[in-house]
Amino acid sequence: MTYEKTKVKNMPAKDIYHNVVRRALEKDGWIITDDPLVIQVEQKRIVYIDLGAENFIAAEKTGEKIAVEIKSFVGKSFNAEFYTALGQFISYYGVLNESEPGRTLYLAVPKSIYQTQFDSKLVSLAVKNSGLRYIVYDVHEEGGIVLWMN
Amino acid sequence: MTYEKTKVKNMPAKDIYHNVVRRALEKDGWIITDDPLVIQVEQKRIVYIDLGAENFIAAEKTGEKIAVEIKSFVGKSFNAEFYTALGQFISYYGVLNESEPGRTLYLAVPKSIYQTQFDSKLVSLAVKNSGLRYIVYDVHEEGGIVLWMN
Repeated sequence: MTYEKTKVKNMPAKDIYHNVVRRALEKDGWIITDDPLVIQVEQKRIVYIDLGAENFIAAEKTGEKIAVEIKSFVGKSFNAEFYTALGQFISYYGVLNESEPGRTLYLAVPKSIYQTQFDSKLVSLAVKNSGLRYIVYDVHEEGGIVLWMN
Repeated sequence: MTYEKTKVKNMPAKDIYHNVVRRALEKDGWIITDDPLVIQVEQKRIVYIDLGAENFIAAEKTGEKIAVEIKSFVGKSFNAEFYTALGQFISYYGVLNESEPGRTLYLAVPKSIYQTQFDSKLVSLAVKNSGLRYIVYDVHEEGGIVLWMN
């Protein structure tokens, strides 16, 4: 019993939500093509974005392509995690736009965080000034993607 | 001896560079007006930017005003620290622009980091896309501010 609890406690939260978001995207018709999506930025610098997915449309050879960086926001300080997530989005956007201009980048945010934090002045101004795109996911199984913010 | 070593090791690096940057700005004629600069964003949310400074020009009642967020980049992962710094810059810029539109925000970066990291594709694209303004400081005493990047 104690062992089981420890096991669950030590499992990175990122991995739990990683699969939740992966399944939610698949439920919405997306094909996961990369897990993670690897971008060779320079000879010695590689960037990993959590998921790459494609939505194949009948009668078209290529579909809509997205890259998704999954955030759990389970730490103590929302602000600190938001700063990191925002900086990642801007940095990944830059290199992704060079290597694959047709692929759209999203940050995946849990519904509870979206509801309690994203209407704050700090976050809404940062979203507006940075052009941050995000999707909101339900952390519960079968909850799925509840919002796409382009 | 061991005690001294431990003491130095445990002293936050941020504080060491904080005073280095503070003195470097003063040497350049800036008056430190806020340490830290406190921004009341909302009733329950306060943002602290490391320094507020003003450059008083003779024959003018008010001078040029800046806010400076100091970064040491002494951690193991430059990328992780850069993401956080970039996210802070965008977030602070948003709230500072609302509360004090006349004050210019800068990120303070050590010279060694500027020289080894800021010409990378990841950083230069992120700087370009975000409008990041930064100053480069020498971590050694009397080194001063070596670059202003507007």
